[in-house]
Amino acid sequence: MKLVIGDKLSSSWSMRPWVLLKHFGIPFEETLIRLGRPGTKAKILEVSPSGKVPCLVTDAGDAVWESLAIIETIAEMYPQHAMWPRDTAARARARSVSAEMHAGFADLRQNMPMDLSIHAPGMGATPGALEDIARIEAIWAECLAKSGGPFLFGEFGIADAMFAPVVMRFHSYAPQLSATSLDYAKRVTALPAVAAWIDDAREEAR
Amino acid sequence: MKLVIGDKLSSSWSMRPWVLLKHFGIPFEETLIRLGRPGTKAKILEVSPSGKVPCLVTDAGDAVWESLAIIETIAEMYPQHAMWPRDTAARARARSVSAEMHAGFADLRQNMPMDLSIHAPGMGATPGALEDIARIEAIWAECLAKSGGPFLFGEFGIADAMFAPVVMRFHSYAPQLSATSLDYAKRVTALPAVAAWIDDAREEAR
Ligand SMILES: N[C@@H](CCC(=O)N[C@@H](CS)C(=O)NCC(=O)O)C(=O)O
Ligand SMILES: N[C@@H](CCC(=O)N[C@@H](CS)C(=O)NCC(=O)O)C(=O)O
Repeated sequence: MKLVIGDKLSSSWSMRPWVLLKHFGIPFEETLIRLGRPGTKAKILEVSPSGKVPCLVTDAGDAVWESLAIIETIAEMYPQHAMWPRDTAARARARSVSAEMHAGFADLRQNMPMDLSIHAPGMGATPGALEDIARIEAIWAECLAKSGGPFLFGEFGIADAMFAPVVMRFHSYAPQLSATSLDYAKRVTALPAVAAWIDDAREEAR
Repeated sequence: MKLVIGDKLSSSWSMRPWVLLKHFGIPFEETLIRLGRPGTKAKILEVSPSGKVPCLVTDAGDAVWESLAIIETIAEMYPQHAMWPRDTAARARARSVSAEMHAGFADLRQNMPMDLSIHAPGMGATPGALEDIARIEAIWAECLAKSGGPFLFGEFGIADAMFAPVVMRFHSYAPQLSATSLDYAKRVTALPAVAAWIDDAREEAR
């Protein structure tokens, strides 16, 4: 199984399935395509029909693209791991917040792009981005209150992987956050799989 | 089980789970909230934490929001129906194109909003919208070629429900389409569940 990803400094979508696979100790090959260079698009299109990364190539040679589709597919392949919560109602909620992340928060994404090499507190704090952040904080607070933590649905899972790039953005742009959000962000950052991604990104920045 | 939706004339996201439930003959109660009126937001927030429709309220009283999360949840509740393809590789591809629809095609959505009451050929045909349409046509052509049709993965399923609002847009804005796309659009439109949505929308327009 091969995961094709973009730069670790900036490819927020790639981070999601990568962190999930690492966290659950699932072996995979990794191919990194540098984004925004001449030839990038052609290289991506060789594997991913949408022209975007991440893209999973299964052992049978099938392409699976779109972070959320990759993640649902991985969850199905490894039912022994509770990537989604085992509880039916919690799983439906985890899917709701993950799909909300997958489709939404356009203002945050546009104004506070993931870039692990920068630290620019206050940058990109448009009204739209701040509204997105408020909604994200509400999601985190409600999930953590319901599950008791330490992650959104108890143990680390898909919903946390979906929000991990948001945590990276919060490090860079340092918006005002509740203590609950800051603590959660700290736990996500300290997770070995997330720390490994950050280390690799730092290597990339040299 | 209750599905809270927006206006049938314009709520493209609501159409997706509604058509899916209807097509598979799954009984549900329907609550329609008129969008864009004073009090709309408050009414939606009473049921849907994201402030958006559609929202499914389960018999246990749990809210499930985001069209794709609702659809995954329904698919899990009714495993007797092949809402996703039974074949593993086809299912992964169906999830990829459905997630691509869920997160993408922003230009098409913005410039050719779903509105079943209008017929305005050529309107909204920006370069971005046309690029989105080209990608959608490529998805349809590839899926239909691989499955043999008549729907994207053989029989009507989730991927078709995800693209049904695009078919509605094509009726309104009549962009140039391949014969393959036009035929597929015709089959989607003729599906009883889709026809029922269109009828209800026409009633709304009176
Ligand atoms: N909704 C997609 C978004 C994927 C996406 O936008 N990927 C970016 C990089 S993070 C990309 O491949 N851009 C193409 C390019 O830079 O040429 C997903 O969930 O995978
Ligand atoms: N990604 C969401 C999008 C939902 C959405 O944008 N819904 C619109 C109507 S189609 C809405 O509720 N808008 C809120 C409003 O009009 O107040 C989904 O898949 O359900």
